[in-house]
Amino acid sequence: MGKTVDTNQSVIQSVVLADEKDSIILLDQTLLPNEKRFLEIKEMKDLWEAIYELKVRGAPAIGIAAAFGVYLGTKVSKAETFEALYEDFKRVKEYLATSRPTAVNLFWALDRMEARFKRETGKTPQEIKQALKEEAEKIRVEDEKVCEAIGSYGLSLLQPGWGILTHCNAGTIATAKFGTALAPIYLGKAQGYNFKVYADETRPLLQGARLTAWELKEADVDVTLICDNMASIVMQEGKVQAVLVGCDRVAANGDAANKIGTSGVAILAKYYGIPFYVCAPMSTIDMGCKTGKDIHIELRPDEEITSKWYVQPMAPAGVKTYNPSFDVTPGDLITAIITEKGIVYPPYQENLAAIFK
Amino acid sequence: MGKTVDTNQSVIQSVVLADEKDSIILLDQTLLPNEKRFLEIKEMKDLWEAIYELKVRGAPAIGIAAAFGVYLGTKVSKAETFEALYEDFKRVKEYLATSRPTAVNLFWALDRMEARFKRETGKTPQEIKQALKEEAEKIRVEDEKVCEAIGSYGLSLLQPGWGILTHCNAGTIATAKFGTALAPIYLGKAQGYNFKVYADETRPLLQGARLTAWELKEADVDVTLICDNMASIVMQEGKVQAVLVGCDRVAANGDAANKIGTSGVAILAKYYGIPFYVCAPMSTIDMGCKTGKDIHIELRPDEEITSKWYVQPMAPAGVKTYNPSFDVTPGDLITAIITEKGIVYPPYQENLAAIFK
Repeated sequence: MGKTVDTNQSVIQSVVLADEKDSIILLDQTLLPNEKRFLEIKEMKDLWEAIYELKVRGAPAIGIAAAFGVYLGTKVSKAETFEALYEDFKRVKEYLATSRPTAVNLFWALDRMEARFKRETGKTPQEIKQALKEEAEKIRVEDEKVCEAIGSYGLSLLQPGWGILTHCNAGTIATAKFGTALAPIYLGKAQGYNFKVYADETRPLLQGARLTAWELKEADVDVTLICDNMASIVMQEGKVQAVLVGCDRVAANGDAANKIGTSGVAILAKYYGIPFYVCAPMSTIDMGCKTGKDIHIELRPDEEITSKWYVQPMAPAGVKTYNPSFDVTPGDLITAIITEKGIVYPPYQENLAAIFK
Repeated sequence: MGKTVDTNQSVIQSVVLADEKDSIILLDQTLLPNEKRFLEIKEMKDLWEAIYELKVRGAPAIGIAAAFGVYLGTKVSKAETFEALYEDFKRVKEYLATSRPTAVNLFWALDRMEARFKRETGKTPQEIKQALKEEAEKIRVEDEKVCEAIGSYGLSLLQPGWGILTHCNAGTIATAKFGTALAPIYLGKAQGYNFKVYADETRPLLQGARLTAWELKEADVDVTLICDNMASIVMQEGKVQAVLVGCDRVAANGDAANKIGTSGVAILAKYYGIPFYVCAPMSTIDMGCKTGKDIHIELRPDEEITSKWYVQPMAPAGVKTYNPSFDVTPGDLITAIITEKGIVYPPYQENLAAIFK
């Protein structure tokens, strides 16, 4: 399961390569917010376990971890030919694919590692192993650059001293570095913007309390934790000048699916005249999805609302619940969509299409 | 602390007189939602304890309990003259006043009992004790009639089969019977309206989950528990045709203070074109308070958000929180204010003044 190590990151990074030791340093997110523990991982099976046990979470971070896992797994092969190494590689890939079979980014990363492997035809096993290590690091660096670009574009919309409200966790620990919605905040922090961040706790799974409040506090950002139903009063009292959220999927018309409650925050922002920004890597924009109506909303179990985390159940036994994990914010409530290729304003139908050209 | 007894109430009543036994039957609300236990109370000190330990809660219910406490405490006096009994009465009143010194309704009820005592000048101690018992029961019946009237007026605005969203607990267990915001639901239930109620869990203290969901389920009302941040999606999906909430205080211009999150629900209702009704006994309408700006919002401790109810803290140690217990919904977001004297529509400035004439 890897040994515990220290790091001195100013902005927490969920998965990094420790090149000198040829190992992976990974934040154990299951211990948050009560303990900050980094694990040094040298073997594929420990990385498999880290993904399986949700020690690493967030689509980009899972992809990065899996890519490093491919390297760790292939590195120990004793194969002496390309073909023999490829057989071992395929076993590694299949094994890692079982760590979290519903994570799309996991498969994307594994496929990309395979594509790289194939591009190395004719090279020695040693050269191929080195190429896999480079490719995994490339995936990580690319994600960091995407986040940094979103951060820069986002920051251009904000002013020093502003209050910023965010929902759920679209932060550094879900990505290579910086996150999406939190990237402008980290970049602003480094430039002395002194934002005051309000983090919705984000029921029922409390990602805002457990993750966002934790990572911003680690980075010494001024963060205040509120319950979801307090977003209205903080806006009413003039404490918030912009809302920044991440997203899971953006439709071609600008409708954006994100963690449950996001649409409510957007409606409040509209009412109070506060800009509402969705931070969306290009990979989340799905031009094949016409509108938010085409986005399937997953329903989750009662116990997340009634009893999870609690000493004893907080709702009557057997009560019905309705527990959708996402909601869709209509494009017309979104002031702008911030991508790594720039800021997209309405009309989204045309302007989202344009950035893909 | 009273012994446990059974009842067969179809709509739960938090405090009732069991006349044949000369005792008080009181629901122990501290055990909700996991246990339904009624206590039979025969002695004033047990009633004091019930108020002190929050076994009875909700402003009207506390007032009723205190009034019955005055009766129980005075009943055992051995005084043989009006004056001697009055001395004992005053000790009883002072003692009960210490049970929950911040509850305005407690003092209102104690003062009303004293006024009744004084009106009985010249009567025998036995006659006065009987009068105090009558007065306490009168307070209870009057509150039930207020709730029933609010329920009737409210029900006139609703149609069978509607989805109704409510926030916090303005239910039967906070009052003599029926509650305020839930009164139209109980009255509709008896008339076969088949409402589908959505109860916001109401963080951080979860009154919606612990109390509203519990009491509606007890009454066999179709209730679905949601997290506060799910109000938007249930409205978006057409599941809600009206919002009913209670209130703590209504200003002369119609601004209404109620549990934190109410203003957000009102903004969502406005956005989705859903009527938003505030159920307000006349006693909560404060014509001396010009606007919501004059209403002081209490801030409560961090731990209610970060650690209360949980097995372990769900937010990083030492994180800042902002935890206002109430917010103010501007009158212009309120479709109507439902009182026991009728339904008041905008403009509130004129129309609220009119019902006091």
